Amino acid sequence: MTAGTLHIVGMGPGDPELLTLKAARVLGVAPVAAYFAKRGRVGHARTIAAGYLHPEVEELRFEYPYTTEIDVDDPRYAEGIRAFYEVSATVIAERLHAGQDVALLCEGDPFFYGSAMYLFDRLAPGYPTEVVPGITAMSGCWAQARTPMTHGDDVLQVLPGTMEASALAARLAGGDAAVIMKVGRNMPKIRAALAHAQLLDRAILVERGTMAGTRTARLADHPDGPAPYFSLVLVPGRQRAR
Amino acid sequence: MTAGTLHIVGMGPGDPELLTLKAARVLGVAPVAAYFAKRGRVGHARTIAAGYLHPEVEELRFEYPYTTEIDVDDPRYAEGIRAFYEVSATVIAERLHAGQDVALLCEGDPFFYGSAMYLFDRLAPGYPTEVVPGITAMSGCWAQARTPMTHGDDVLQVLPGTMEASALAARLAGGDAAVIMKVGRNMPKIRAALAHAQLLDRAILVERGTMAGTRTARLADHPDGPAPYFSLVLVPGRQRAR
Repeated sequence: MTAGTLHIVGMGPGDPELLTLKAARVLGVAPVAAYFAKRGRVGHARTIAAGYLHPEVEELRFEYPYTTEIDVDDPRYAEGIRAFYEVSATVIAERLHAGQDVALLCEGDPFFYGSAMYLFDRLAPGYPTEVVPGITAMSGCWAQARTPMTHGDDVLQVLPGTMEASALAARLAGGDAAVIMKVGRNMPKIRAALAHAQLLDRAILVERGTMAGTRTARLADHPDGPAPYFSLVLVPGRQRAR
Repeated sequence: MTAGTLHIVGMGPGDPELLTLKAARVLGVAPVAAYFAKRGRVGHARTIAAGYLHPEVEELRFEYPYTTEIDVDDPRYAEGIRAFYEVSATVIAERLHAGQDVALLCEGDPFFYGSAMYLFDRLAPGYPTEVVPGITAMSGCWAQARTPMTHGDDVLQVLPGTMEASALAARLAGGDAAVIMKVGRNMPKIRAALAHAQLLDRAILVERGTMAGTRTARLADHPDGPAPYFSLVLVPGRQRAR
């Protein structure tokens, strides 16, 4: 029997109309749809896919073992998450082995900070695998914020808000455009780093970009508490008039 | 009379099926489609759009005044390109003023190193403007190359190949994942910078990502001449097994 194909499909930032035509085609015919979700949540990728799945699709829902109760630096975290990816890959492999195609639904772009990479590593050596890129959250956010980001020879840095404050400030000061991910509880630190790099006035906070309830604000005008889960900070590049 | 809306539409990296559903919808009804093209070429954005435009669309083709005959640092370049964007904006504004919607077709993502930003700056203050993000060339290339790029807390740097060699090497050595744009004639310098940063073995060259005739190779295996126009170098991040 011929093995099924694993389609790793980028679902874009949130607006279902930002799916690619290719992603919509793949979802419409896949007999099996797999996705990750946080405990008690529908799952962001699954929410975006709702209108495109085949009516008789089999859904494989993989629930992350942790949210915040174990620190990511705790060895038990690494062990638990590895076991989680192993089990997920095994379940998908059973379908592929039986000749069924599987669509793995991924928020944003699969190879840009996506959990799907850990299943790609496990499954691509053994099964036909296709990757459909998606609109990244950052592209969705800068379009939403109507903020041209990178011009001419700008350097763009994508930085995790989890970085140490002084490292973050040094990076920001040494670049042109920047995107800061993983904002949430790191907001006070990010704000301080931006101020230190004299970039606070240029920074823009986008919450829930392209989704219902989206908001865009100058970071300087935002209260100094944590930001919602789906938030990004944008520092546009050196706009030169032309 | 109500003014028309300017839709600035990302066309993705090359494969027409990587258009978003939103982009396809906008193109299908726009009475006017505007795009930039190099002299003597159809234009990359126009090529991607071919199957989606309204049959009776009016096309506004704006041909760049230069290709390589004037250096970008020459003051005449800046002057000529500014006049070019002024004229392009004026022609589009006439249609908007007359109540027609205009779709401005853009390679990749409009706000990520796109010429469309210079028309956005001129037209958005005066006319309703919507931005539809697109799949970036880099997302198209790393999907094509089956190369997971950024993991966990990786920093990603997007670097222009036009940078000075020592600055490029220093940047590369100080980061995790990197994408090098504007490869072309800068290839020998980029190769030297990667070697200096001890990253040559990790670097991947993707030519014409998602387009016909695409090729992926380890950069170390590529002959040391220039690369084709649609080329990117990818340095994947610090993959940690999970």
